[in-house]
Amino acid sequence: MYKRITHVGIAVRNAEHSSKVFSKLFGVGKEHSEEVGDQKVKATFFKIGEAGVELLEPTSADSTIAKFIEKRGEGVHHLSFEVDDIDREIARLKQEGFRMIDETPRVGADGYRIAFLHPKSTNGVLVEISQKL
Amino acid sequence: MYKRITHVGIAVRNAEHSSKVFSKLFGVGKEHSEEVGDQKVKATFFKIGEAGVELLEPTSADSTIAKFIEKRGEGVHHLSFEVDDIDREIARLKQEGFRMIDETPRVGADGYRIAFLHPKSTNGVLVEISQKL
Repeated sequence: MYKRITHVGIAVRNAEHSSKVFSKLFGVGKEHSEEVGDQKVKATFFKIGEAGVELLEPTSADSTIAKFIEKRGEGVHHLSFEVDDIDREIARLKQEGFRMIDETPRVGADGYRIAFLHPKSTNGVLVEISQKL
Repeated sequence: MYKRITHVGIAVRNAEHSSKVFSKLFGVGKEHSEEVGDQKVKATFFKIGEAGVELLEPTSADSTIAKFIEKRGEGVHHLSFEVDDIDREIARLKQEGFRMIDETPRVGADGYRIAFLHPKSTNGVLVEISQKL
């Protein structure tokens, strides 16, 4: 059971510049920023209704976000959906035949445990499932 | 003021196949499908919390979705955000320097008036604003 879109992750080259763009677009300021060392990104959050928009700026050239931008340019990187029990959800997804990038949840931004599915399983969409810590 | 993510639009080659994939992913069936003649797509809707996930299958080779898939493959095509007053919002966005694809709202799927912004204005993200008819 997917409760909501937790956030949409958007790969950007420069979070400071893009924060201004999205602030103007949404008509609201950012909520907060944080570095996610594990993923080598700086994440900047906006809140739209029950969902978030997360701008992801790579902090290192070997960040997956840096590689994504190099290959495809800036744009939507992933969709995150909130679940009640991420361990049970990973087990269910595997049983349904989905390929997990993360078979074990790891700690993501904004106080969530997260796990990514392989986009080949999901029509080219990089899907993350997330559970509030 | 952006109230919520109305939907995330995902370009797919075959809506029937992809509906099965996303039904399994979300653990819920689709809400409904409809043809949007204006955009030459068949749209299939899933509901996740207050937002939708909209699978877009081109119904013609000259559909923008067909061209998107040809160029980039299947995947996230656009993000739609709900606004209270789309005409006022278009005027505000233009004043803020955003480039509109649609300067006048048109009728989209699922009973909304919609307008697209040019992705060059918004960090490579194709953004739609939407107002319930």
